[in-house]
Amino acid sequence: MRWIAVDWGTSALRATLMDGGAARETRSSDEGMSGLTRDMFEPTLRALVGDWIDAGATDIRAAGMVGSRQGWREAPYALVPRAPSAGAVAVPDTDLRVRIAPGLSQRRPHPDVMRGEETQIAGILARDPGFDGCACLPGTHTKWVHVSASEVVSFLTVMSGELFALIAGKSILRHSLQGGGWDADAFAAACADALSRPETLTARLFRLRAADLLEGQDAATARATLSGLLLGCELAAARPWWLGRDVVICGSDKTAPVYRTALESQGIRTTIVPAAEATLAGLAAMGDPA
Amino acid sequence: MRWIAVDWGTSALRATLMDGGAARETRSSDEGMSGLTRDMFEPTLRALVGDWIDAGATDIRAAGMVGSRQGWREAPYALVPRAPSAGAVAVPDTDLRVRIAPGLSQRRPHPDVMRGEETQIAGILARDPGFDGCACLPGTHTKWVHVSASEVVSFLTVMSGELFALIAGKSILRHSLQGGGWDADAFAAACADALSRPETLTARLFRLRAADLLEGQDAATARATLSGLLLGCELAAARPWWLGRDVVICGSDKTAPVYRTALESQGIRTTIVPAAEATLAGLAAMGDPA
Repeated sequence: MRWIAVDWGTSALRATLMDGGAARETRSSDEGMSGLTRDMFEPTLRALVGDWIDAGATDIRAAGMVGSRQGWREAPYALVPRAPSAGAVAVPDTDLRVRIAPGLSQRRPHPDVMRGEETQIAGILARDPGFDGCACLPGTHTKWVHVSASEVVSFLTVMSGELFALIAGKSILRHSLQGGGWDADAFAAACADALSRPETLTARLFRLRAADLLEGQDAATARATLSGLLLGCELAAARPWWLGRDVVICGSDKTAPVYRTALESQGIRTTIVPAAEATLAGLAAMGDPA
Repeated sequence: MRWIAVDWGTSALRATLMDGGAARETRSSDEGMSGLTRDMFEPTLRALVGDWIDAGATDIRAAGMVGSRQGWREAPYALVPRAPSAGAVAVPDTDLRVRIAPGLSQRRPHPDVMRGEETQIAGILARDPGFDGCACLPGTHTKWVHVSASEVVSFLTVMSGELFALIAGKSILRHSLQGGGWDADAFAAACADALSRPETLTARLFRLRAADLLEGQDAATARATLSGLLLGCELAAARPWWLGRDVVICGSDKTAPVYRTALESQGIRTTIVPAAEATLAGLAAMGDPA
């Protein structure tokens, strides 16, 4: 049976024609949910993959911000502990069969939310039904997730990705961080330093500017140092999630190896699952609407 | 003798007509150094206070980014330990007598720079020549300064102010931080929490968004919490500068009381000196060019 997997985020739309569990073709556009009103979702999807629908792929399974209050239809956050593939919400008033994955919310040990990542976790469980450990989903807002007995038990969101982008793009430090390249030694040193002395994070930042002005420190070293400081601080905060557990890192080719390097420096065994694959596997495992 | 005190920063110019040590009149404009080429400084100053100059106030003493490489004339960073009022640089090719304060630089215990704040520290010493302790100068880039034997011994720059502005203005959290008001209890709790567990800083940020979505937390609480988290982390990092010392806080009416509250919660005795007064006192104490 052919169906369509949809990853519809704030700023992008990605649709994949599926044949059972196998991906046949993927198309993307920049028509994320932030630019759409409710009545624009179906026409936008049909404009991208109308030929697939006309050929019979009317089973649409979607995850991401498409299920937020401002989305195609709200799929309210479901409270953890919770199986991440449960509770899909049907979209009414359409000839298509559209289901949207609900996000997850948490009250304790602290308030937190996710939307989209729950489907990747469902994909990790679909590939390895007995998985019990920590899922790390790097991104703008990285999620650290404790998974046990096929459920999400608890999770933590850390904004390191967004902080890196803000500091490198908008702060006074941007002058010292422009350019490419990567200094692996500087990353490792900064990560270790922040793990052992996380209180110095904000005080270490301006040093990147001073080292540029006084010593001509190059941008590759500065960028890797900033990344290492943020990731070391993140690892220190997320320790209750990863310590003593196997970690599955579900991210992009760019982010996953950075997290692997940092975690393995702490003696943690990691497995990488590409994020796009996990999303498709999670949508394939989506249950019927309640 | 009448003279003109000039505080010329990146984005603003402020000139005060002085009679000895007494301020007679202050004028401001938004013509900061970032918008000026070298030959525009004198005409810009004359446009603002040409009448004072024509009446005989040709002795001009300036501090701030006006002395940077892109300024009116570069007044290179002077290495600490250093008396903060020493080493003024004369501006050539003008009928005026213009002196600019040099910034300060540091190599150990870490690379750091300041420009403008050295004049405020000179002002603190002019008002209290025997001062031996810590000067805290809150701002976009807060400086923590160890002053002893009339010299700046060492200092630390922390970017909490810029981070607050970036997070509140440009990050996903901006939706949860808009609005006025202040929650003093939330500030104190967050500050204490970050002081004792600084590793949770970046992990605590997204919680502000989740608490808004799930619990309707108000913006005043969120803003005070963000401020408290950043300041607690800053205090933890700056501990070697303030611990066991009297602290002079040299800031604005808005920032100084926030730092006072945080420091006094740690049992530290503080004195507040208004930043604008310190700048004038420091310029009044400026020495002759080398």
